Amino acid sequence: MTEKTALTPSTHTAPPARFSHGVRKGNILQVAGQVGFLPAVEGQAPTPAGPTLREQTLQTFANVKAILEEGGASWDDVMMIRVYLTDTAHFAEMNEIYNEYFAGLTVAPAARTTVYVGLPAGLLIEIDALAVLD
Amino acid sequence: MTEKTALTPSTHTAPPARFSHGVRKGNILQVAGQVGFLPAVEGQAPTPAGPTLREQTLQTFANVKAILEEGGASWDDVMMIRVYLTDTAHFAEMNEIYNEYFAGLTVAPAARTTVYVGLPAGLLIEIDALAVLD
Amino acid sequence: MTEKTALTPSTHTAPPARFSHGVRKGNILQVAGQVGFLPAVEGQAPTPAGPTLREQTLQTFANVKAILEEGGASWDDVMMIRVYLTDTAHFAEMNEIYNEYFAGLTVAPAARTTVYVGLPAGLLIEIDALAVLD
Repeated sequence: MTEKTALTPSTHTAPPARFSHGVRKGNILQVAGQVGFLPAVEGQAPTPAGPTLREQTLQTFANVKAILEEGGASWDDVMMIRVYLTDTAHFAEMNEIYNEYFAGLTVAPAARTTVYVGLPAGLLIEIDALAVLD
Repeated sequence: MTEKTALTPSTHTAPPARFSHGVRKGNILQVAGQVGFLPAVEGQAPTPAGPTLREQTLQTFANVKAILEEGGASWDDVMMIRVYLTDTAHFAEMNEIYNEYFAGLTVAPAARTTVYVGLPAGLLIEIDALAVLD
Repeated sequence: MTEKTALTPSTHTAPPARFSHGVRKGNILQVAGQVGFLPAVEGQAPTPAGPTLREQTLQTFANVKAILEEGGASWDDVMMIRVYLTDTAHFAEMNEIYNEYFAGLTVAPAARTTVYVGLPAGLLIEIDALAVLD
């Protein structure tokens, strides 16, 4: 696979602009910034999972994972996870959810950067990821 | 090309610190954060394109593209585009400009993350990009 | 080295969640977001270097460098440095420190993106880095 391939899981709504949810070229896989949108329902605007940080974070993880898998990768291949939060007060809870989610990892966990930015109204977290496949 | 090479298009002002506008090593090309500065004029401080988001965005795209080309790449090779905006109210207009700009792409568009951050006064958008060449 | 390896310098406190301070897989090395924490002291919470931007920046560079070296890399291999500041008024001073720190580089300096975000209380700067080894 030396061509660049778009990764578009069937659960995802169409991107709101001319970008891909993920791309793979050779052994490099890049996941675009994902938010906590629930699986797409035809004819409906994208809707984020429930109002809590926990619900949005778990849905965001699921959305990243779907793209990794569409490209033949898994969390084991992820080198870098960028976490964008909107509120420093969410750091501790996000880490708890993060640790639970990745508790089963048997390989070195990805590196991570967490920064606090603005996001569209209603969104509490955004995550993107860079993977290198074997 | 296995050495790391700096990519410095002739249109660009010198970076304001000891970094490169872009670097390439092997098949990996990284473009530094670009803003909407007009082509360099000797003896003048860098000046952003007109005050509108459209002017700044198009100039920023041109600046990224110049670095890609300096490194032997094109938009077709770009895996990830990071867009930094200062105002969530600019999202829809930026997407319009983005879609027009990339309308002619014949390959999978790059992944993208858009977040809202602070930028130096007068700047509305900053973009960086990661490319993987064939 | 085609397996993903965690990079954990002995000077570093344990990450506050299930991520690695850095990872290497093949010739790609990713350094997680580093802040200006002083070398770990057992039984003590992580403490940032003195209150000034200079002290925090130099400690942050030292922390990034330790991870690069743990993975067999050096600043010469770094392609991209992401600098997160909290205040646009810090740009000029950070660039001064940056230029002094990298004055001795004999290869093309890394590309860089600098944006202004929120960070946990007391932290003025965060830096992460992507390296490609020979």
